[in-house]
This record gives sequence, structure tokens and C-alpha cells, in this order.
Amino acid sequence: METVKQIKILKITDNVPEEKLDTVVVEKPINIFVNLEFYAALMCSPSELEELAAGFLFSEGVISSAGDIKSIEEKYGDRVCVVLNHEFRKDSENLKARSTGCGNGSVHLNALENRNFNPAEDGNRFTAESIAGFMKEFNHMSGVFRETGGVHSCAICFEGGIEYFSEDIGRHNAMDKVIGKAILKGIDLKESVILTTGRISSDIVVKAAGAGVPIIVSHSAPTDLALEIAEAANITVLGFVRGNRMNVYCCSKRIIS
Amino acid sequence: METVKQIKILKITDNVPEEKLDTVVVEKPINIFVNLEFYAALMCSPSELEELAAGFLFSEGVISSAGDIKSIEEKYGDRVCVVLNHEFRKDSENLKARSTGCGNGSVHLNALENRNFNPAEDGNRFTAESIAGFMKEFNHMSGVFRETGGVHSCAICFEGGIEYFSEDIGRHNAMDKVIGKAILKGIDLKESVILTTGRISSDIVVKAAGAGVPIIVSHSAPTDLALEIAEAANITVLGFVRGNRMNVYCCSKRIIS
Repeated sequence: METVKQIKILKITDNVPEEKLDTVVVEKPINIFVNLEFYAALMCSPSELEELAAGFLFSEGVISSAGDIKSIEEKYGDRVCVVLNHEFRKDSENLKARSTGCGNGSVHLNALENRNFNPAEDGNRFTAESIAGFMKEFNHMSGVFRETGGVHSCAICFEGGIEYFSEDIGRHNAMDKVIGKAILKGIDLKESVILTTGRISSDIVVKAAGAGVPIIVSHSAPTDLALEIAEAANITVLGFVRGNRMNVYCCSKRIIS
Repeated sequence: METVKQIKILKITDNVPEEKLDTVVVEKPINIFVNLEFYAALMCSPSELEELAAGFLFSEGVISSAGDIKSIEEKYGDRVCVVLNHEFRKDSENLKARSTGCGNGSVHLNALENRNFNPAEDGNRFTAESIAGFMKEFNHMSGVFRETGGVHSCAICFEGGIEYFSEDIGRHNAMDKVIGKAILKGIDLKESVILTTGRISSDIVVKAAGAGVPIIVSHSAPTDLALEIAEAANITVLGFVRGNRMNVYCCSKRIIS
């Protein structure tokens, strides 16, 4: 499916209108089915839908690894059908907080309140220079964004640079897609860095914590609650990473000069 | 409640770290109760919570005007209790699409599929110059954004300029707050313009359509589905409004040179 579309618009410059062709980003509702039952509908960019479903179900705690998935299949252009190796009953009574963010950022209030994560491992450390380098590579990769101004991007890096990259109209979807990719390949993320174009709200940190990612990097801002959770989960948060400038908000031990 | 907070960060410039005080935006879970029952939890900026609850319940179709509200009260710092003039049962089986966006952008798939809005009235027309003027005023108003880079803003204008303004970590929350303000005062929005710092996704258009707002203005991008719904709902969408440049994506009849 196409993720962008050409449309006719009226461009006005200094009160002078002109008809022009312009590119806008495509938004689609996608239905996720688990063991043949409807689980959730996401508004998203129609690309990498299996990865999106895998990452989303991982974030939701429905699966804990690719081993839980018997089959995953995109069907009819509007759904992803996931069959698990175990029984599953959707608990509609789960108390969820709607997120501040894009797509599927539902957050179990309990997760926020109990902070019962496995803290991230201390693992690798990175120089400020290599973080700036990752971000430079990242900024060059988002073609759709440059074309339409309408999507968020997310990437997972290891020491050598960016390994996985995804984009979506929603910043949570972009993160689920990129984590979904790594999970479907059985990749361990405990030495990785995750990059996002979006703001770092609590649910973004909860997703990273769930995946064992120890470092989150954004060129935007974190919230106080995101930092509180990151601190508890031993996750390093860097924001406003622009050129050779960056803010390290917590767990700065992983960043070396 | 404070919406920003001072914290100690490590600022790195050209590999040189320096401890500094920085301001981050506050994120809080707020629980909305309707007729004494829990309805939803939103992650938001802790300000204008009654307006947020009113706008949110309006967007959800739980209320259709201020007249439906018997009382609305912020309590214990973490909840808003809304008592309606009518009985209400939460239908947990409603098929909802999670939104691409911030906060509470749940969207009834039916609303998207049936497009059964009352089309916006043709109402006032505005010059490109006055739209640019609204946006200039709007850009100057968002103090928290300038301080932290972490919030979205939304405003409702009439011919004379901006009348209502709200901000929140979530772009949907900001829109619900500002629409909530107008609704609580019984203001008719059919001659208004709504401004947002966020992208225009389908759920943003659905919110505007529900409130009868005929013009949506953003300095960011719309999605194709947002434009499809806007067209069906007779709503004018302007994006990338920056200085004296702007794109009119649909229903350009309301913008005059």
C-alpha cells in the first residue's frame, strides 16, 4: 500500500493563490486480530503492518517474544491476523490510561504506579559524538517526512550505527514497528539505542523498558513522568539532540565524553 | 497544579558536559468519572481539567452541550467527576480505533466509515491575511512550549482574533480543552476557526466536525483521510501556515484573496 498520495491544493504566497500538486501522508485504520478475535484498531501509515502488530502486541504484554507467535499475516489490506501458540482472552476490564501520544500508546496505570520493570542492564556506553552521529544518520533517513512533513520516525542502533528504521503517522506506531522488527528476528536489544523524532512521554519509556532498551534519544523533549519512570527503569534519556548539542536527562553514566 | 518543573540535567555541547537547571513539562494521569463510574484515564498536562473532561466527553458523544452537565468538579488532584442530567451506561463494546494522536483521540470506526456528520455551515469567509494574523498571534501565546518544547497548543478564533487558548502535552487534549471551554460557556462555533500546532489526522477533523467548526488551521501537515473526512464534512483545512505562506487543502471557498 502507498504511504503517500498526490493531491491538488491551493498554495497561497503573499495573498496570491496558485493551484499545485502536493504530497500528503496516507492514514488507514488497521484491525488487529488475535486468535481470530478482534483485538484493536490502529490508525496508522499502511506499511510494515506485521511488524506493527508484533510490536504493538509486545508493548501490550500479549506476547513476550516471537516464540509466542504461531503465524502472523496481513489480510485484505485492512487487517493483521496473529495466531498465538497459547490461548488468549482479551481482558476488557484492564484499566488503561489513554496516552498523550500517537497510535497505540495505551498504558496500564498499574505499570505506571508499580514501576515493576526489570531495570535495564548497564551494558554499553556511548560517546556524545557517536550519539550525535546516530542522530545525523537518522535525520537523513526519513524520506517520507521530508516529502510530507507528516510522519514520525524511529530507529534502533547498535555500536556500528542504525540497524532498524521505521516511520508512521504516529510516534507510538513508529516505535512499535521498529521494536516489532527486532522482536520478529529474535534480536536482543539490551545493548541498543532507540532514536525517535517524537516527544518522550511516559508510554514511550514504558515501551523501551519492556523491550530492554537502555538508551532513548530524541531531538524533542521528555516529560517529567517519562523521566521518573526512566530513572526507575535505569534508562538513559537524551533530548534535544541537535548537531553537537544534547541534554542528558537521567542515567548519564552511559554517556562518556 | 504546576504544568512545568525544574530539574537538573547534563547539557553537552561539543563533547563538553555541564550541569544545568532545565524546565520539563509535567505529565499526569487524570481519571474521568461519569455519574460516579470510572470512564477513562488520560495522560495530560494538569491544567484546565474540567474543560478537558467536558471537551473529551463532548468528543466522545457522551454529552452534546453544557446543558447535559449537572455538575463538574476536579477532585483529589487526579480526577474530574462529571454528573450528567441523564443516565449513562458506558458501552465497552464500542468498536474504537486508537488514534494516531495525542491523548484521547479514540475514534469510532463507524464515524469514519459512515461519514454521518452534519456538514459545517458555509458561514464566514476569511482572507489569507487574517488567517496569517491569527497564526502569528497564536505562535506568540504558547509560553510553555517556548519554555520546554514539550506541549501542543490549540486556539479558537472569531473574526476579531483568538478568544480561547489551551495547551497540553497531547494535541488531542489541547483541542478538547479549548472546545470544552467554548462548550461550557455555550458558545456557538459555527463562525469560528480552530488553530493547532499539531498535525491534522482524521480524529482532529472528527472533533472539529462534531463541534461545528468550519475551518482548521495548522502549521503542520494533514493526512489524506483527514482531508477526505473534511471534504465530506464541508470543513476547510489549511496546513503549513507559516508567515504569509499557506496550503489550502480543501473547501477553499472560505478563503478569499
